[in-house]
Amino acid sequence: MLSMNKAQQERIKREFGDRLRSARQEKDLSQEALALACDLDRTYIGGVERGERNISLINICKVARALGISPKELM
Amino acid sequence: MLSMNKAQQERIKREFGDRLRSARQEKDLSQEALALACDLDRTYIGGVERGERNISLINICKVARALGISPKELM
Repeated sequence: MLSMNKAQQERIKREFGDRLRSARQEKDLSQEALALACDLDRTYIGGVERGERNISLINICKVARALGISPKELM
Repeated sequence: MLSMNKAQQERIKREFGDRLRSARQEKDLSQEALALACDLDRTYIGGVERGERNISLINICKVARALGISPKELM
């Protein structure tokens, strides 16, 4: 079994958060503007960007759509 | 605001499930073998493949890793 340890899981969340922040800043959107555009909470977006949240498939697609990018680009 | 309705969310989950099933079958793995390889439950894998579950980032990465593919390929 290829188990995934806690450190690897933290890295996945942190890297996703970094990509989300970069993509958001490229579009010149504040966390608040992005949150509003995808119907999520600003504190949730902040938590994802800091690598604190394990974002779900649906929310990945919501933020990608609000940013006008493919969900693939966030992975 | 670009809201996402229920039908769109169901489609996202169903399409992810279809891609997961195809990727798993390409590797000639049963749901049980895949579940074992990524330390998830077989019934959970089945639910994701049927589009019933809103899989998280960490679990997307776990199944991708167990299948030897990039998480992008599942998106």
